Amino acid sequence: MYNKRSERTEISALGEFGLIKRITKDIPVKNTSTIKGIGDDAAVIDNTNKVTLLSSDMLIEGVNFDLVYFPLKHLGYKAAVINFSDIFAMNGQPTQITVNIAVSNRFAVEAIEEIYAGIQLACNHYNVDFVGGDTSTSPHSLFLSVSVVGQADKDEVVYRNGAKENDLLCVSGDLGSAYMGMLILEREKQAFKANPDVQPDLSGQDYLLERQLKPETRADILRILREAKVKPTSMIDVSDGLASEILHLSTESKTGCNLYEEKLPIDFKTEETAKEFNIAPTVAALSGGEDYELLFTIDQKDYEKIKDIPEISIIGHMTDIKSSANLISHDGKVAPLTAQGWDALLDLEKNPEKKKKQEGNQENEDKKQ
Amino acid sequence: MYNKRSERTEISALGEFGLIKRITKDIPVKNTSTIKGIGDDAAVIDNTNKVTLLSSDMLIEGVNFDLVYFPLKHLGYKAAVINFSDIFAMNGQPTQITVNIAVSNRFAVEAIEEIYAGIQLACNHYNVDFVGGDTSTSPHSLFLSVSVVGQADKDEVVYRNGAKENDLLCVSGDLGSAYMGMLILEREKQAFKANPDVQPDLSGQDYLLERQLKPETRADILRILREAKVKPTSMIDVSDGLASEILHLSTESKTGCNLYEEKLPIDFKTEETAKEFNIAPTVAALSGGEDYELLFTIDQKDYEKIKDIPEISIIGHMTDIKSSANLISHDGKVAPLTAQGWDALLDLEKNPEKKKKQEGNQENEDKKQ
Repeated sequence: MYNKRSERTEISALGEFGLIKRITKDIPVKNTSTIKGIGDDAAVIDNTNKVTLLSSDMLIEGVNFDLVYFPLKHLGYKAAVINFSDIFAMNGQPTQITVNIAVSNRFAVEAIEEIYAGIQLACNHYNVDFVGGDTSTSPHSLFLSVSVVGQADKDEVVYRNGAKENDLLCVSGDLGSAYMGMLILEREKQAFKANPDVQPDLSGQDYLLERQLKPETRADILRILREAKVKPTSMIDVSDGLASEILHLSTESKTGCNLYEEKLPIDFKTEETAKEFNIAPTVAALSGGEDYELLFTIDQKDYEKIKDIPEISIIGHMTDIKSSANLISHDGKVAPLTAQGWDALLDLEKNPEKKKKQEGNQENEDKKQ
Repeated sequence: MYNKRSERTEISALGEFGLIKRITKDIPVKNTSTIKGIGDDAAVIDNTNKVTLLSSDMLIEGVNFDLVYFPLKHLGYKAAVINFSDIFAMNGQPTQITVNIAVSNRFAVEAIEEIYAGIQLACNHYNVDFVGGDTSTSPHSLFLSVSVVGQADKDEVVYRNGAKENDLLCVSGDLGSAYMGMLILEREKQAFKANPDVQPDLSGQDYLLERQLKPETRADILRILREAKVKPTSMIDVSDGLASEILHLSTESKTGCNLYEEKLPIDFKTEETAKEFNIAPTVAALSGGEDYELLFTIDQKDYEKIKDIPEISIIGHMTDIKSSANLISHDGKVAPLTAQGWDALLDLEKNPEKKKKQEGNQENEDKKQ
């Protein structure tokens, strides 16, 4: 995935101040709002005439990723991007991040540099300044906690709670692919453990793997919507799975929702792979999570403006709160939408075989407040 | 330290959404700048006409604290306060925090509630809004990562790099006490391990223990300085130890510094306890860390305004860069000020006996970028 570097410098050889100096050198400042980046007690940000958006997300080894198959550079990239995604989901622009990292001394300096290279790559790609953070030792797992600040015009911010009855429910891109990527990686890991001579078979899986290992967030969708002069009435990013996010929007907006199974955007590769794993593609789409697509509602009057945008699917509509949230299946059956807690997934983590049989809703193990 | 609650609710009994609901209920919003707190993809903050300050710090079980003697409520309090301290060190007012927490399932819901109760207590005390974050499982250690946003008038921000030659070097409060508190707790832990029938002897140690377990940050000093019409030329909070922070100020400001041992503010209890542990009190003050006092420089012309403030000690003055940073000892000897990296402390953690013999500079194991 990336060129592995052959040097190995022990962290102790640099000392921690040396390490910080090394990972924070050549970090450019791109936003005029960044008055002071790395190097003081706090970053200083000028957000005059805008509101400031703040969010925070973490990735933990053994919970959110497995270093057996997760390249460190990708990990850094993903840690940054999933935070940017929260700011885009408010219809804002991420501008600064801080990164807290805790590593055990089994990591070499070069490994930590790979993580920061990934973070920096994401920052460059999304025009965000890396402005500080904290580094520490960790007794066991690698721990990455990122906070992001963004900005938006006050009247442009889109909350979770603005959906109205009859609003159209829309989602960008396709769903379930990141989860399929994870299942493939887990399968190859198990195969490798069973027989280390077998090389992992990842051919033809680029799309699904990239969705898991190097997700992007949908800044482009916000641009498209602005150009179409559509402001969503509510919005959220799909990190925990579509079902869970729909329930957030309806609960916060005090509406119900009808979601149509036939409208779910599922990539051909996702469908094919889900079937291989004996999982209904709809379950992957509803509960896979980590898609980092944008789920939003628009007023019906905006239908004409978005109906021909290929990157956006209309998957349902909001109803009155008494009707609650429902899935209308291919055969017209109506079933309540449900989202399970992290317990379900923890159970799956311990028992990977169960994944193949799982037919109910699943969710990721971390939740935003 | 706090009333231990007798209930034990397993996290699995609530599910994670239930847990979030429980720990985030009744969280008030106190700052008018908090437009949206918990419950969306990002918090929304109105900082019009002010600059936004952003900082981030973490506490990790087994590195920064030991749950054998660290009450969870205090832990939450400290995690919040050490972050506020970074904003005060910029001469700003902390206004919002996000909290990322990762816990293993050996913790009951009540334990997590204790942590959040401590965070909330600190927020109430310092008038800060808790506006979001992320919760996750952790395979091993408890992780607490806090990010803080603050605000300040643009021309009131004090950076690390503003000290000039001949500026006076000042510090608030006293130094080395939090480190002594930690040594006492470690000693009692070892004694308890050796003989569980022996009750810990913590009598008369309230001040040192509180400095370690429930530190406060010096918002009062900023108020005093404003009232005295003194704006520091540079400022930093003492988290890693005085020596390390002085080196930050001089390096960033491109000055040297003379620090006078006889001027170091050391509490009687700190001195007494340091001697018990066979540590020079000066070493405790220089390298103990976690004091969360404010270290700052002022122009010589402001001397009269601060000389009678009991909470502020003038401990030295800045010199030209060629003279570098020096410690002038009681007997007039001049020695270069040095700060070791985390390796030194890690070494000490592994070998507590060495602590008693350690005469060089020591530092905490986490460093701010």
